[in-house]
Amino acid sequence: MSFNTFGHVFRFTTWGESHGPALGAVVDGCPPGLEVSEEWIQPFLDARKPGQSKFTTQRREADAVKILSGVFEGRSTGTPISLLIENTDQRSKDYSEVAKAYRPGHADYAYDAKYGFRDYRGGGRSSARETAARVAAGAIARLAIPEVTITGYVSEIGGDAIDPARFDRAEIGRNPFFCPDAEAAQRWETLVDGARKDGSSLGAVVECIATGVPAGWGAPLYAKLDAELAGAMMGINAAKGVEIGEGFGSARLRGEENADEMRPGLGGDPEFLANHAGGIAGGISTGQPLVVRVAFKPTSSILIPRQTVTRDGEATDLVTKGRHDPCVGIRGVPVVEAMMALVLADQKLLHRAQIG
Amino acid sequence: MSFNTFGHVFRFTTWGESHGPALGAVVDGCPPGLEVSEEWIQPFLDARKPGQSKFTTQRREADAVKILSGVFEGRSTGTPISLLIENTDQRSKDYSEVAKAYRPGHADYAYDAKYGFRDYRGGGRSSARETAARVAAGAIARLAIPEVTITGYVSEIGGDAIDPARFDRAEIGRNPFFCPDAEAAQRWETLVDGARKDGSSLGAVVECIATGVPAGWGAPLYAKLDAELAGAMMGINAAKGVEIGEGFGSARLRGEENADEMRPGLGGDPEFLANHAGGIAGGISTGQPLVVRVAFKPTSSILIPRQTVTRDGEATDLVTKGRHDPCVGIRGVPVVEAMMALVLADQKLLHRAQIG
Amino acid sequence: MSFNTFGHVFRFTTWGESHGPALGAVVDGCPPGLEVSEEWIQPFLDARKPGQSKFTTQRREADAVKILSGVFEGRSTGTPISLLIENTDQRSKDYSEVAKAYRPGHADYAYDAKYGFRDYRGGGRSSARETAARVAAGAIARLAIPEVTITGYVSEIGGDAIDPARFDRAEIGRNPFFCPDAEAAQRWETLVDGARKDGSSLGAVVECIATGVPAGWGAPLYAKLDAELAGAMMGINAAKGVEIGEGFGSARLRGEENADEMRPGLGGDPEFLANHAGGIAGGISTGQPLVVRVAFKPTSSILIPRQTVTRDGEATDLVTKGRHDPCVGIRGVPVVEAMMALVLADQKLLHRAQIG
Amino acid sequence: MSFNTFGHVFRFTTWGESHGPALGAVVDGCPPGLEVSEEWIQPFLDARKPGQSKFTTQRREADAVKILSGVFEGRSTGTPISLLIENTDQRSKDYSEVAKAYRPGHADYAYDAKYGFRDYRGGGRSSARETAARVAAGAIARLAIPEVTITGYVSEIGGDAIDPARFDRAEIGRNPFFCPDAEAAQRWETLVDGARKDGSSLGAVVECIATGVPAGWGAPLYAKLDAELAGAMMGINAAKGVEIGEGFGSARLRGEENADEMRPGLGGDPEFLANHAGGIAGGISTGQPLVVRVAFKPTSSILIPRQTVTRDGEATDLVTKGRHDPCVGIRGVPVVEAMMALVLADQKLLHRAQIG
Repeated sequence: MSFNTFGHVFRFTTWGESHGPALGAVVDGCPPGLEVSEEWIQPFLDARKPGQSKFTTQRREADAVKILSGVFEGRSTGTPISLLIENTDQRSKDYSEVAKAYRPGHADYAYDAKYGFRDYRGGGRSSARETAARVAAGAIARLAIPEVTITGYVSEIGGDAIDPARFDRAEIGRNPFFCPDAEAAQRWETLVDGARKDGSSLGAVVECIATGVPAGWGAPLYAKLDAELAGAMMGINAAKGVEIGEGFGSARLRGEENADEMRPGLGGDPEFLANHAGGIAGGISTGQPLVVRVAFKPTSSILIPRQTVTRDGEATDLVTKGRHDPCVGIRGVPVVEAMMALVLADQKLLHRAQIG
Repeated sequence: MSFNTFGHVFRFTTWGESHGPALGAVVDGCPPGLEVSEEWIQPFLDARKPGQSKFTTQRREADAVKILSGVFEGRSTGTPISLLIENTDQRSKDYSEVAKAYRPGHADYAYDAKYGFRDYRGGGRSSARETAARVAAGAIARLAIPEVTITGYVSEIGGDAIDPARFDRAEIGRNPFFCPDAEAAQRWETLVDGARKDGSSLGAVVECIATGVPAGWGAPLYAKLDAELAGAMMGINAAKGVEIGEGFGSARLRGEENADEMRPGLGGDPEFLANHAGGIAGGISTGQPLVVRVAFKPTSSILIPRQTVTRDGEATDLVTKGRHDPCVGIRGVPVVEAMMALVLADQKLLHRAQIG
Repeated sequence: MSFNTFGHVFRFTTWGESHGPALGAVVDGCPPGLEVSEEWIQPFLDARKPGQSKFTTQRREADAVKILSGVFEGRSTGTPISLLIENTDQRSKDYSEVAKAYRPGHADYAYDAKYGFRDYRGGGRSSARETAARVAAGAIARLAIPEVTITGYVSEIGGDAIDPARFDRAEIGRNPFFCPDAEAAQRWETLVDGARKDGSSLGAVVECIATGVPAGWGAPLYAKLDAELAGAMMGINAAKGVEIGEGFGSARLRGEENADEMRPGLGGDPEFLANHAGGIAGGISTGQPLVVRVAFKPTSSILIPRQTVTRDGEATDLVTKGRHDPCVGIRGVPVVEAMMALVLADQKLLHRAQIG
Repeated sequence: MSFNTFGHVFRFTTWGESHGPALGAVVDGCPPGLEVSEEWIQPFLDARKPGQSKFTTQRREADAVKILSGVFEGRSTGTPISLLIENTDQRSKDYSEVAKAYRPGHADYAYDAKYGFRDYRGGGRSSARETAARVAAGAIARLAIPEVTITGYVSEIGGDAIDPARFDRAEIGRNPFFCPDAEAAQRWETLVDGARKDGSSLGAVVECIATGVPAGWGAPLYAKLDAELAGAMMGINAAKGVEIGEGFGSARLRGEENADEMRPGLGGDPEFLANHAGGIAGGISTGQPLVVRVAFKPTSSILIPRQTVTRDGEATDLVTKGRHDPCVGIRGVPVVEAMMALVLADQKLLHRAQIG
């Protein structure tokens, strides 16, 4: 439907397809006076950018962002900020096969069922390329929440998880997997490269932690901070599961294990003795770190032939040629971080709307 | 914040606390001409009603719904339907301890941090009692989607899962756990009763399947059908995780295992050979059954003393007396079903708004 | 459609028909800690209450408001406030004529065309009785904007306008017309009574001034403070026109007359030399008094027979029996004031969301 | 605040300032399959384009629209349509005076009071140039409502009104005033040229009629079709008043004059004997022509010196140099038409959402 707008008061709207001339976002409701610039946004886009290792798609996009409005003399004016990213690496290609048959695991059939036809070039609107617009918008959101630090990383690929004991934040930027565990990163090289050579793909789990969120953001029930995060994360391409804090693990704990105890802390605020809740109770932040986990399915575009049907209802086998991520979850990290920033900026503004 | 309204065009707003005179919902945007009546709604409330076995809270509420508007001569008029449920079993009780100290695992501290004070009687707005209003609204939503059949059940309690091979839909209504596996139901009697006697509590996983959803409902990206469902389910009290289809399991599959193959089906529509996607691709329904899974944490109100702090910042131990569910996930089943119905009614209307 | 909810962050949802058991409103997003009570709300309802003079409908309603949620120990908790007003004076009456034929000037035909049928008792949802719910919600909104003073009055009935030179705020409460001009009030006695005796009705213009609104509330363009006010006021039953400041009169001024000049004021803020703008420039408040004017058509229910058609398409003449306001604009004053308060509370909260 | 998005299901978001590189709109929720093209949109932009006669601003903009997304093989895909219009005629100019002092009648002071600073180049976001984006979006909306014909025109300039008896639709396109009365158009030449030579400006009234709207669009109360139109029209730059049907005139009619009588019509639908209601009763369309009237204040940018204050609080006199419309209402016609189309497209989709 008509909802390419995300957020309540800090809002953004994205547009654009994989193979059109450009894609972009309009950020609305941004507080005035923030130091928004192309230079600030670009590094976040660069982190998401394809083609930087053999473990991501070989499509090469500059992903250079242009600010078209809402910034004057280096600062946000409070009016809408229009961001534009040109598509530069659109190979002319034969789409006739994809136009005719539905790629298994993709949205092709669902789009046709809904809209009656679809832009079949590179997945059209459902391409992961759209996430560039979110990452750009997320970079602006970060400026609205300077008190918050957001750290995303891959915690599992193809069922092979990191060892939390070896967690090292500095490691995240040192390997092509956003992996905080140097040993896991090494294993993943073999794992992901193997899948790539097989023409197959792997799923992944991305974890994201936000520290510095004060107690009190969010709201009970329908607009629970966890509900907003769940909707935001599940709205990312290829996401199939979301957990807050202990998540599904909490369903296996007993009440006395799960309820995070408190004791008097320094500075007056309570100190929590555990964080099974992932920093949210009753939909409202507790002041503890927010912990979110997102499951990404394996890339659906694979070189292994799969059974499918054509638009005319004929049986066929399909191989999805092209330049694809062997593990789309990897490049999900900057996107999950961006959505975290966008939700938190919105919640911060909503909180001060009601509470002042 | 101000968002006790859920939905885009088929919308509902709930209000009410556990210990006020009543709670309720206003359903807005309901199509006209539906046969809405108190008799239709009541059985859904009865299924959620507490006090029906020793495995749920012993609070006894009639949960009798009254329709105050929007229905004329037995049919919805298209104007807002106001639903009212009186609270009848409010024991006068000494809340001084709960007023002073923050119950671990509860939203007490977060509410105070946000609002500066809180209605501490029985959890106030964050009480699971609010879900009665959702269930009533959900009963109306079902009338708007007669093509859909919704089946919820508990698939796991305290880490003890059902055996899918023993799944029997008829069994769900025969035991106090909404359990489709008769053997698991028997094991759970011992398990839940044990936790109850220990003054402890257990978590649970609720699964919900919707069949009959045609291909084409939903939308790409921010309003993905899965994103809407994730937000809806995570907005339920005590929910900590949501999965669509294979969920976190899909992160452990390879691309060729996960991509649901298709072949020509009877009647022209493709037939899928698997449903790892849980009936949704690219945010749009595929015509396969929708599959959603929700993790509920163990009830936070337990009789085992836990460390906490008072409003004045003093250390104390707290026991949450009262009548509590030893496993709040059980009574989550009618709530998850209701949220499924409410999301689908809204998506059906949105779909026909855009497509006609 | 589904939009009986008004507002962005300070929001309210109304429900209820003229001849159902009750009507009400749910106020959501209210800041916590406000001294909300039935005693505070009731006088605003009493001002709107019918049956207080021969110049309004003789229907007698106690219009006693009950608060069902969201208030604890005399203060708003920040969660939804549910307000209920019972309908007490529902005469059993023969509606067969109204059920069959469309009353000219009423929404009967339009409702049937939209919904396929309608609650024909007393106008159903389109009854002016719904405005009681707005007035109750508006009383709460006033608590959120203590810096603002709102003054509404009737400035014209049946084409007979007040003389601005005789404007006396104290006079407004002394006559049954909310008229600030004692002489006009006297003329209107004859005028309105004449219309009543003729079985006819008169239109009116209501003016509303809000002082104390600081410069800076509102937003450019689509959410212009004037656009919000225009939508709010035009949403009142029987409203057919809205003006801000000079309104249609400004279309007859030259630029140099219309542009409100400024000079340095006491305390640093500019002082305006005129207020043609009605306190709003570019959609944002200027610190000057807000001035809004609303045109109410004459009550459509009249005793003079009018040509119409039946549901079956037959020609007929119809007289709308019953107890009707000879000038519905009079009782529009508390409603216009309420909508002003509701818009301003919402805008105040939105402003601090973005600006902090 | 953050609301540069308009509409509920057929929605658009605009962005851009007068003196930035470009401006644009994102149209979301557009039905798929519509024949959207730059060639279709351009003529509507050309009608709004400045510099076409001496009666509008001499700024020369090509106003060439580019479609960046959401259209594939000449048809809308159902995903967001991004429209871009480059600003080409930005004279380098000395803004130091405008940067320092607040132009009377403009939003300068209000913007500063809200945001703390502003983009002072050509009015920034509050420039009438933003309306180009609405006109482009409106052209797409028209494709979604082929059953509707929209006709806008100027009915009054500087207090000099057209004679309804001389109304000739064909005349509207033949003069530079969108005037349907050839004699009035001739008088206005002198009138507007006189104001221009005086360095002054004039206000205007724009009328807009939509025929072909079926009975049943809209909704009661807060989302009344008239409330939506009032908000939409008052959201246009320089608008200060909105009327539906008889508008303020209806406040001067008696009930029996105002209530539009009906008699059996051809084809089964009732035939109305008058249209004081302007095609809307109870917030829902009646099948009669919709009639809306919008008051535009005189352009605030004039060459006659006016008293004002600087940002530093000093008294000064200001002349707004530059290329300005002597009567901004004239170019308001395509904008009012666009907003009419955008509201009706949204309402059509909302209607079929609820009713099917």
